[in-house]
Amino acid sequence: MIENVTLAVVGVGNNTSALIQGVNLHRRTGTLVGVRHPEVDGLGVGDIDIVAAFALSDGKVGRDLHEAIFVPPNNFGPLEAELPPAGVTVRRGLVGAEGIDEVAAALDGVEVVLYSAPSGRPGTALAYAEAALRAGAAFINTTADPVARDAQLLGRFEAAGLPLIGDDLASQFGSSVVHRALLRLLDERGLTLISSYQVNLGGTEDFRNLVENPSTKKQSKLNALGSDRVQMAPLGYLPHLGSQKVAHINIEAQGWGETSVNLDVHLKVHDPSGAAGVNIDLVRLAASAKRAGRGGYPPEVASLLKSPPGTAV
Amino acid sequence: MIENVTLAVVGVGNNTSALIQGVNLHRRTGTLVGVRHPEVDGLGVGDIDIVAAFALSDGKVGRDLHEAIFVPPNNFGPLEAELPPAGVTVRRGLVGAEGIDEVAAALDGVEVVLYSAPSGRPGTALAYAEAALRAGAAFINTTADPVARDAQLLGRFEAAGLPLIGDDLASQFGSSVVHRALLRLLDERGLTLISSYQVNLGGTEDFRNLVENPSTKKQSKLNALGSDRVQMAPLGYLPHLGSQKVAHINIEAQGWGETSVNLDVHLKVHDPSGAAGVNIDLVRLAASAKRAGRGGYPPEVASLLKSPPGTAV
Amino acid sequence: MIENVTLAVVGVGNNTSALIQGVNLHRRTGTLVGVRHPEVDGLGVGDIDIVAAFALSDGKVGRDLHEAIFVPPNNFGPLEAELPPAGVTVRRGLVGAEGIDEVAAALDGVEVVLYSAPSGRPGTALAYAEAALRAGAAFINTTADPVARDAQLLGRFEAAGLPLIGDDLASQFGSSVVHRALLRLLDERGLTLISSYQVNLGGTEDFRNLVENPSTKKQSKLNALGSDRVQMAPLGYLPHLGSQKVAHINIEAQGWGETSVNLDVHLKVHDPSGAAGVNIDLVRLAASAKRAGRGGYPPEVASLLKSPPGTAV
Amino acid sequence: MIENVTLAVVGVGNNTSALIQGVNLHRRTGTLVGVRHPEVDGLGVGDIDIVAAFALSDGKVGRDLHEAIFVPPNNFGPLEAELPPAGVTVRRGLVGAEGIDEVAAALDGVEVVLYSAPSGRPGTALAYAEAALRAGAAFINTTADPVARDAQLLGRFEAAGLPLIGDDLASQFGSSVVHRALLRLLDERGLTLISSYQVNLGGTEDFRNLVENPSTKKQSKLNALGSDRVQMAPLGYLPHLGSQKVAHINIEAQGWGETSVNLDVHLKVHDPSGAAGVNIDLVRLAASAKRAGRGGYPPEVASLLKSPPGTAV
Repeated sequence: MIENVTLAVVGVGNNTSALIQGVNLHRRTGTLVGVRHPEVDGLGVGDIDIVAAFALSDGKVGRDLHEAIFVPPNNFGPLEAELPPAGVTVRRGLVGAEGIDEVAAALDGVEVVLYSAPSGRPGTALAYAEAALRAGAAFINTTADPVARDAQLLGRFEAAGLPLIGDDLASQFGSSVVHRALLRLLDERGLTLISSYQVNLGGTEDFRNLVENPSTKKQSKLNALGSDRVQMAPLGYLPHLGSQKVAHINIEAQGWGETSVNLDVHLKVHDPSGAAGVNIDLVRLAASAKRAGRGGYPPEVASLLKSPPGTAV
Repeated sequence: MIENVTLAVVGVGNNTSALIQGVNLHRRTGTLVGVRHPEVDGLGVGDIDIVAAFALSDGKVGRDLHEAIFVPPNNFGPLEAELPPAGVTVRRGLVGAEGIDEVAAALDGVEVVLYSAPSGRPGTALAYAEAALRAGAAFINTTADPVARDAQLLGRFEAAGLPLIGDDLASQFGSSVVHRALLRLLDERGLTLISSYQVNLGGTEDFRNLVENPSTKKQSKLNALGSDRVQMAPLGYLPHLGSQKVAHINIEAQGWGETSVNLDVHLKVHDPSGAAGVNIDLVRLAASAKRAGRGGYPPEVASLLKSPPGTAV
Repeated sequence: MIENVTLAVVGVGNNTSALIQGVNLHRRTGTLVGVRHPEVDGLGVGDIDIVAAFALSDGKVGRDLHEAIFVPPNNFGPLEAELPPAGVTVRRGLVGAEGIDEVAAALDGVEVVLYSAPSGRPGTALAYAEAALRAGAAFINTTADPVARDAQLLGRFEAAGLPLIGDDLASQFGSSVVHRALLRLLDERGLTLISSYQVNLGGTEDFRNLVENPSTKKQSKLNALGSDRVQMAPLGYLPHLGSQKVAHINIEAQGWGETSVNLDVHLKVHDPSGAAGVNIDLVRLAASAKRAGRGGYPPEVASLLKSPPGTAV
Repeated sequence: MIENVTLAVVGVGNNTSALIQGVNLHRRTGTLVGVRHPEVDGLGVGDIDIVAAFALSDGKVGRDLHEAIFVPPNNFGPLEAELPPAGVTVRRGLVGAEGIDEVAAALDGVEVVLYSAPSGRPGTALAYAEAALRAGAAFINTTADPVARDAQLLGRFEAAGLPLIGDDLASQFGSSVVHRALLRLLDERGLTLISSYQVNLGGTEDFRNLVENPSTKKQSKLNALGSDRVQMAPLGYLPHLGSQKVAHINIEAQGWGETSVNLDVHLKVHDPSGAAGVNIDLVRLAASAKRAGRGGYPPEVASLLKSPPGTAV
């Protein structure tokens, strides 16, 4: 029988919470609702064991992981009435590059490191990647900070036979995915794009972070959409939305005979679910690639990322 | 140099009007806005000559084609201030199977017959197909009536080396195309569809016909969407919309952790443009297949039709 | 202390179910969420006792009222985990005018009759009104069938000192209410209405009835909107919506300088709640008017009805 | 016969452009489309003569007013093919408090000063008000800067028998007006508001100014909506929208039985038209009040302003 993936998570925010809660829901009920791949190279949704977790906030550090995921500002779920203790205590994480060796030591026996902290701290992201490399673990960067786009670092992972996956998670079903699909459809059908915009509103702490550090993320979004006729409205942090994210997408185009085509989309999703639904695949893909000795960037993850190696930083 | 396609049109409604007006706009200005394929096997958008036209209404029969396309209830355009006479007089068309030979005679020298009459007259559609077959012309059925889905008839076209294309035009960019793309995206991303509906409102005569004969069309729509969780609301004929068509599409789904995903789309298009933008390709594909001696159903048209051969009647 | 209203309900569909469930929720929790008038002339939300109920379906007749409200096709709620027995057994109701005296006898001691059966059976509606008159009870017609618009009948209620309220309930917050408010706002602000439409989709049995008998209702809707530039799309019965009703409202107008103004509204409500939230007021207003000896149509109910006395039948 | 109003405009942006173009369209065609009051105390839409104009940009100062209104970044219209010269040359305006006397001198013979510069320069707004006071003219402040809310200044206008109107124009039909009407409707119908948000996107220079100086405006918006459950998303400046403004309004509420009510509105207007459609009334009301010797704040303008005297600054 295949062995469970040993996973370390960096960041104990909503996305990590959704991953953990969803895995537990699956283990208890067998649900495959919203699951993209019931199996990835033989690994099921429940075949993941979190063995280490890192966070920065005093409210989370030192706590059992299954308690820490409900500490505010986290506001996802709960999906179920009860969650038994994880048996994993949240450790204090890195700020910048100091302490890499200690983290590397803590990663002993870990196959995959899922870096799921807020975007906007590129130095810290690179430090964790370095720790993973030293510990012999695959690394997944779900933030918009450039890690997999760092060609030199990617080369070192490749040489070490360790997968390096990133950057910037494309939500399982978020505004970028829908917007891109519609723009592609427009193009396939031969319509001419006149203008387009996207408005994103959210109520999570991750979202508040993006509002305050919009630049990296915005470029990553535009990388994903790939047209200079698309405009991004400023992100709106509306606390009452909780873990829900709301997007308004508009597309103005012209069809045959230069007649107008208008398309307006109103999308409501739970952002942490959208992240976890992709992370569950990335973790298994990373483990599988590592076990097969395939280092570097595994091309099969391309559709799950907004800014893969080679795109603009 | 490649020769222009000689085309006969059956039905002088909005869709034929949009085809004619768009071709003329292109010829005058060179515009390629909303054009899917500037060239199809060497045939440009302007390389089509309409040499015969059939209609039933007294207001259109006997008139120059470029006048007839503006006779009510037609309400598309005008796209341009002026349109010179076509030099083609609209002939009285078939009702049912009588008069096939006369039509076949009138189709002498015609390469492609574009059947663009209202849906809901299957006998008449088959009669025109028969006439095309006798005259040695390719036949395109843009209505929801089963013609290309008639296996026996398809065999005869194939044997004669004549293309037979149908059934039921998928608009260049209409509610079916968008709805299908979004359902496919949902599926690709691993979401679980809970329910979905589609509301279509329009103001053209074609639309009024569909409202009064909804059954064939509705099945064809559902063929295109391919899920039993999708419901079609009754079509709404709202005259003030003119040639505009409005659709409201709703999708309710669940993602990771069984959280809700809601997607609402509001789409506004000009229906006759959506038809003409596809017909301009079908006509050129039919001509090209015919010139190459390829009879029967050309598989390259699949994405342009809602009910190709093999789908439910 | 003020005495509770004694109420008989005709029709044990979703609207009656919502009224009963909402009253019980209020009694248990004290909630005033969604309540327009905590008190009407001293009568609170909980001060209503249902003492008789009439229905036609075999599944409901003979059952305790609190069981009958959950019998399919009813599909509203349940709002709470448990509902104790009502102690009222559902009686077999009228079909047409036969049996009025028996019903009148069963209404002995009843202050208010709430007629909440499906629209489209005007004879039956009038028969119940007649029974109420004979029994000395106020009568409320929530259907689109003309009862309060019957001038002769209204005169008889007036003469008897009994309130007669109708016709056609304006939902507490439905598409008509919102549409009318927006058209009025447009007018107040000096904009010029160009066109407008309304699409209504629902999944209740009442809705299915309306789809099959649209004429009365549609006229009543247009009475409520009062403009010939407004078009109603056909009602769409989409079972998966359950007790939810969805409306799409579009308004196209022009402002200063003849520039365009577009307004699109997407409204989702629970139809039975919208009815019950008004019925709770109508019942108390009817009881209060009756207790004060005020017969006929009480003008204070005007904003709660779509087709009050004097409007088109 | 009544005499035309003599008007000075401060700010030659889109709003002034729309006022001028609309008045000229009315004079030429007689159109009353989008006009709230064909007459105000005998003054028609065309009974306004602009006799002075002030601006700051080099591209506008020194030019004929009818040319200046089309100088970028202005992007409203043109509504008509041609506009004859105004015969009024745009003067260089104030920056802060210096030069008040010169402006006062230039206002000789002017009845009404319409202050229509960008929001966010309170000192300049007050300086123009001072100049109007010295010149004996009524003053209208359409910006969010506090002028009419300055109690001391209001007292001086009152004492001088001069109307002072402000602050912050409520567009004839913009997101605030629609949002407020819907929240009021909700309340009237007895629903309980849970949450609400408003997103505003625009493409004018005025809009760009608001994006860069959001604070004053946002408070003024919230004054207008009057609920702490309403959240404003950051304004989005999307140049491609031109003079169009797009708003997305969401309202989440609960009705009877605590069931959910969702309302989403998508509104598209031309912002300068919305301003001009109100300014045409304010100017005539100001002139009429002045002619009647009524100084201070005329209460009949209340519905046209977001932050009248007495509301928060």
